Amino acid sequence: MEPLSIEDYLARSSFEASPPKWHLGHTTWFFETFILKNQLNQYQVFDPKFGYYFNSYYESLGDRLAREERSSLTRPALALIHDYRKYVDAAMMDLLAKEGLKEEVLDFIELGLNHEQQHQELFLTDFKKALGQQAHAPVYDPQFPEDEVLEGPQKWIELPEGLYEIGHSGAGFHFDNEAPRHKVFLPAFAISNQLITNEEWLEFMEAGGYENPQWWHSDGWAWRQKENIEAPLYWSKQEGRWQNFTLAGMQELKREAPVKHISYYEAWAFAQWKGQRLPTEAEWEAAQEFLDWGARWEWTESAYLPYPGYKPYIGPAKEYNGKFMVNQMVLRGASVVTPTGHARPSYRNFFHPHFRWQFTGLRLAKK
Amino acid sequence: MEPLSIEDYLARSSFEASPPKWHLGHTTWFFETFILKNQLNQYQVFDPKFGYYFNSYYESLGDRLAREERSSLTRPALALIHDYRKYVDAAMMDLLAKEGLKEEVLDFIELGLNHEQQHQELFLTDFKKALGQQAHAPVYDPQFPEDEVLEGPQKWIELPEGLYEIGHSGAGFHFDNEAPRHKVFLPAFAISNQLITNEEWLEFMEAGGYENPQWWHSDGWAWRQKENIEAPLYWSKQEGRWQNFTLAGMQELKREAPVKHISYYEAWAFAQWKGQRLPTEAEWEAAQEFLDWGARWEWTESAYLPYPGYKPYIGPAKEYNGKFMVNQMVLRGASVVTPTGHARPSYRNFFHPHFRWQFTGLRLAKK
Amino acid sequence: MEPLSIEDYLARSSFEASPPKWHLGHTTWFFETFILKNQLNQYQVFDPKFGYYFNSYYESLGDRLAREERSSLTRPALALIHDYRKYVDAAMMDLLAKEGLKEEVLDFIELGLNHEQQHQELFLTDFKKALGQQAHAPVYDPQFPEDEVLEGPQKWIELPEGLYEIGHSGAGFHFDNEAPRHKVFLPAFAISNQLITNEEWLEFMEAGGYENPQWWHSDGWAWRQKENIEAPLYWSKQEGRWQNFTLAGMQELKREAPVKHISYYEAWAFAQWKGQRLPTEAEWEAAQEFLDWGARWEWTESAYLPYPGYKPYIGPAKEYNGKFMVNQMVLRGASVVTPTGHARPSYRNFFHPHFRWQFTGLRLAKK
Amino acid sequence: MEPLSIEDYLARSSFEASPPKWHLGHTTWFFETFILKNQLNQYQVFDPKFGYYFNSYYESLGDRLAREERSSLTRPALALIHDYRKYVDAAMMDLLAKEGLKEEVLDFIELGLNHEQQHQELFLTDFKKALGQQAHAPVYDPQFPEDEVLEGPQKWIELPEGLYEIGHSGAGFHFDNEAPRHKVFLPAFAISNQLITNEEWLEFMEAGGYENPQWWHSDGWAWRQKENIEAPLYWSKQEGRWQNFTLAGMQELKREAPVKHISYYEAWAFAQWKGQRLPTEAEWEAAQEFLDWGARWEWTESAYLPYPGYKPYIGPAKEYNGKFMVNQMVLRGASVVTPTGHARPSYRNFFHPHFRWQFTGLRLAKK
Repeated sequence: MEPLSIEDYLARSSFEASPPKWHLGHTTWFFETFILKNQLNQYQVFDPKFGYYFNSYYESLGDRLAREERSSLTRPALALIHDYRKYVDAAMMDLLAKEGLKEEVLDFIELGLNHEQQHQELFLTDFKKALGQQAHAPVYDPQFPEDEVLEGPQKWIELPEGLYEIGHSGAGFHFDNEAPRHKVFLPAFAISNQLITNEEWLEFMEAGGYENPQWWHSDGWAWRQKENIEAPLYWSKQEGRWQNFTLAGMQELKREAPVKHISYYEAWAFAQWKGQRLPTEAEWEAAQEFLDWGARWEWTESAYLPYPGYKPYIGPAKEYNGKFMVNQMVLRGASVVTPTGHARPSYRNFFHPHFRWQFTGLRLAKK
Repeated sequence: MEPLSIEDYLARSSFEASPPKWHLGHTTWFFETFILKNQLNQYQVFDPKFGYYFNSYYESLGDRLAREERSSLTRPALALIHDYRKYVDAAMMDLLAKEGLKEEVLDFIELGLNHEQQHQELFLTDFKKALGQQAHAPVYDPQFPEDEVLEGPQKWIELPEGLYEIGHSGAGFHFDNEAPRHKVFLPAFAISNQLITNEEWLEFMEAGGYENPQWWHSDGWAWRQKENIEAPLYWSKQEGRWQNFTLAGMQELKREAPVKHISYYEAWAFAQWKGQRLPTEAEWEAAQEFLDWGARWEWTESAYLPYPGYKPYIGPAKEYNGKFMVNQMVLRGASVVTPTGHARPSYRNFFHPHFRWQFTGLRLAKK
Repeated sequence: MEPLSIEDYLARSSFEASPPKWHLGHTTWFFETFILKNQLNQYQVFDPKFGYYFNSYYESLGDRLAREERSSLTRPALALIHDYRKYVDAAMMDLLAKEGLKEEVLDFIELGLNHEQQHQELFLTDFKKALGQQAHAPVYDPQFPEDEVLEGPQKWIELPEGLYEIGHSGAGFHFDNEAPRHKVFLPAFAISNQLITNEEWLEFMEAGGYENPQWWHSDGWAWRQKENIEAPLYWSKQEGRWQNFTLAGMQELKREAPVKHISYYEAWAFAQWKGQRLPTEAEWEAAQEFLDWGARWEWTESAYLPYPGYKPYIGPAKEYNGKFMVNQMVLRGASVVTPTGHARPSYRNFFHPHFRWQFTGLRLAKK
Repeated sequence: MEPLSIEDYLARSSFEASPPKWHLGHTTWFFETFILKNQLNQYQVFDPKFGYYFNSYYESLGDRLAREERSSLTRPALALIHDYRKYVDAAMMDLLAKEGLKEEVLDFIELGLNHEQQHQELFLTDFKKALGQQAHAPVYDPQFPEDEVLEGPQKWIELPEGLYEIGHSGAGFHFDNEAPRHKVFLPAFAISNQLITNEEWLEFMEAGGYENPQWWHSDGWAWRQKENIEAPLYWSKQEGRWQNFTLAGMQELKREAPVKHISYYEAWAFAQWKGQRLPTEAEWEAAQEFLDWGARWEWTESAYLPYPGYKPYIGPAKEYNGKFMVNQMVLRGASVVTPTGHARPSYRNFFHPHFRWQFTGLRLAKK
């Protein structure tokens, strides 16, 4: 958050995005609420009102500020939220200094850290959207590298029919929605080793992909018409050349980089136009060791649903993932704004099919 | 449509429902457009304007009346649509009288008949909704039997882990979305032989099921709050007793009959409250021979997606099913308003998760 | 209503318009409710439920069908509403046959007849809108004369500064909002003897009148932008020629006829563009004897407000006019669809400034 | 703006209100655009992009930021807007130091100063609304005096029938909409010397004023129902006692102070309930010397329309007032947040009839 002006901390963009100030307060509140209040004797809550401001969506934890009001948070002032952070950080250090912390407490701390990493990514995506909506294209960081070029030739990875295992296994952190590891039967399939590039997306556009309903879902076409979608988010044409708004400011479109900021509807239409399809999440995970991934979140043909035998967290954290398992599509991989160390093969990201503000791209599968 | 007044043919209810007059014109247009125009030499289209009125959603067949304008169809008059039907029926008889009709033509005729059966069911559901919204609860047919009581004890059917085959096989008609038949691996599971009853639904209500967000999806809870949902559609309390609007008019709620007119969100919340879950469509199909089904469409835990290797119809009929494979949940079974002979174990019905105007219910699964 | 098909009786168009069936029931209900129930001993209400259907906006008379639901009235059937009318007509004849009817009763009967005349006009305007929204331009009456050509030269009528009296005086029926007659002081002004024609409106359009915000109210410009208004209602260009939808069907635009179906916003913008203005209602009434009027309702520069000393009707009829005295502009004159004998110089019609479905035009004033 | 945190400068509340930062930039831009660019040779515009940000509604001055986007202005940073102000102030001082400034230039400077005063008042009303919507009732200034108690007895001022003159006359600044001074004929009337108090408003509430449609305009009642209005804006009941949110924070309601933050609809309903009425603006101005006024803007029964012979400003300032003369009601007087010296008897304020965020109250008239 270093490059931000104080006012930037209130930057809002759209219903699904939150201002930086809120992300800061919310991640702090998460440690206080899920760990310190329960685990540290005599811990004094910094300010009882903060629960109202910084609870995101936990119904069991009481009333909260409506999501669309988050950018109205002119008070508490930023300085006070920084104090809040220092206060909670100090208490966390006290807690960590204790000997014999229970497994369950360590698990919650690990969850809090992973939660914070998710918000680090969300901060960048939300703030990019907020900047992108302001006039005159403000710059976040002139060196920010969003678009590395794909290297090596495109190839089809072929996997045979058979029983595969997917889901998290072994040690290491994972969210509840990645478990349990379980068997799936997959027919033989092929999956591309590479992401679709801006170059390929331009071919789709030039072939009239955005004008022809035959490639689109019915809901997707209605969305495209209503929102007048004609290109990926952040693209604009200036004097006949495609420009791309990035965290480094407005740039010429890099044709060899993977396409990003597309919705599921657009990804699916592209695959239809190619006569191919998106992979399912099971296919993706089965093939992941052969793939070049991590630059873009990749839309899959799988709806976000519980794995067989799924068990949500106990307590208020039950609401972390399970209640979102409807109306969303699974994305696999990670993106250039995902914190280092936060990605893994079993990770299940999920968004509504019309969302584009994340760094979302696609790869193709066939058969 | 016998019990209808002429004005009833324009009855409208909601965005997703169509007036009887439109169903009549649309099913007729389907035969004319998909069969007669292509297969009968020298067939004269009844009225070239009718394509505009009666095309439902086929983008490749040109402009059409917006869905929400269907109830504005005061012209053409009903009498003219009846003439249209007679004209098309006569032409269909001419076609059927021919010898040596190609397989492909017979397939389209079978599709037209199944399409008509789907609209017979839709007519009843749509018209029930239209009547239900009018003041003073008009009656469609005083003898209409919506609510037969479940018989015999509830039991859990147990199926072992293993590879199962689902999807349509053998002879007989099926829609493109039921194929191809394919293998799925299922963990061991149990599924109830019976549908959930009104009695059980009342228990959920009395336990505060509609007031407690912990049982609900996030989207489901938002929907419940916004629409102020407190009971299944068509239920109302009069002088302390639950009444139920049916095609036979307003009736006392039958407690032993299966619940109906609930959304996926409600079905899922009920299952959460029970500590159980909805079956997946693969589980349902694997177990269907042990089940008592056919009274209600049953929500499953499966999103409506293509089977591996799915091939849509060729030509304009491509739009029949495939373009709807997003944002919807699969329902299995059939209901009291499904035409006789139209149900089969591989049938995949699908609706958005908030829809309630269909005769939708649920059964539970566990493990 | 002779040319209507039965389905036409349910024709709906927009929020402000009602279907023919409703107009029929409502005017009948008005006689029953305001006269028969109070004045005829032992009068039996035809059906107590009809009050719910046919009460327009009288809060003091109980619950009523929402305005936007009026077109859902498939039941009661039209035949029953015709029976209702015959029943009420017969009772009215019984009442009129009585000797010694009180002045107050005669006043209410006169109000009922004037109310019916208002709905005769509304029926034609509403039904025109309903037909106009259907595909393929259905015809109401091929002989209906909407557009008579203005004759004689345009002239400016000059009136001197001074005290004038406006409002109804003398015998004859008038609505409560036309009284009391009262003095107003007017500066000297000039008013045109003629309405603005289609020819003059085309000049405004060709001069970019619809594209230039400088002629428009702020609210008017926002409305024009949002609704994408580019010409009067019912105009459409076909192969380079302006067509006009009328009750006689689609016709070539008659350039010498007075313009119609324009909003107050458009009328005001036209006057601004001309460097002139609309007359106030007091100016219009002061000058009416010199004017050629009656073909179009004429927008004035006066907001619809009570005259000094205004007294609304007593009882439920209090709601007839007074509660609408905000947010509307006064129109003076009458139009080609106003029943013969219903027009008079003191008549105050009123609509919201964006309404165009009435036969509305304008004349100019200056100084 | 002294008590504001930096983030407060982005505080938003509702469509009609703007954040402090925008008010600051806009009033500065007004001096630059309407005066410096035209009157100071070689004046360099501070930043050509600022016109896009800070143009309020002048269509003739080019594209501008949409009103609802004003709170997204995280960039330019506040510090830069302060620089802008200093830059423009310095240039204004240079201009004022010149000898022989033309009358027209002095007029524009006077307009700029009055414009700034209007925004000083708007800043307080907008910022109160923004604070009022935040949780936990933040305080602007603990000493801010909103509610002085009325003194002396209520009396009726009686004025006779006759010709009166209204509108601005003589020297001193006035806006274009206050001219020309002109004659109006008024019947005899009575007007109260005092504003209606909170005490009287509570009587209206206790008499069911907000529940009984008979006192309300049709549009007013629809508004009341839709918005669920049950008391003036900023009132809330805590433990059985009425609280009032003010710029000094949450306070116990002062019963003897004049009511404020009511819409025209509410004011009119109150008058109907009393069997009296609101004064017209002509009555108010004719009687103003006998009145106690200045604590609240007072709703009148007059629509905001041009005076006879009204001439708007020349050039872009034409849009200052004239284009708003529709759909609004006139308010007379001034309020506790009006800058000293900005009030005068001929001042015409105007708002839409449902607006409540201004310090609006009422006095009654009769006859």
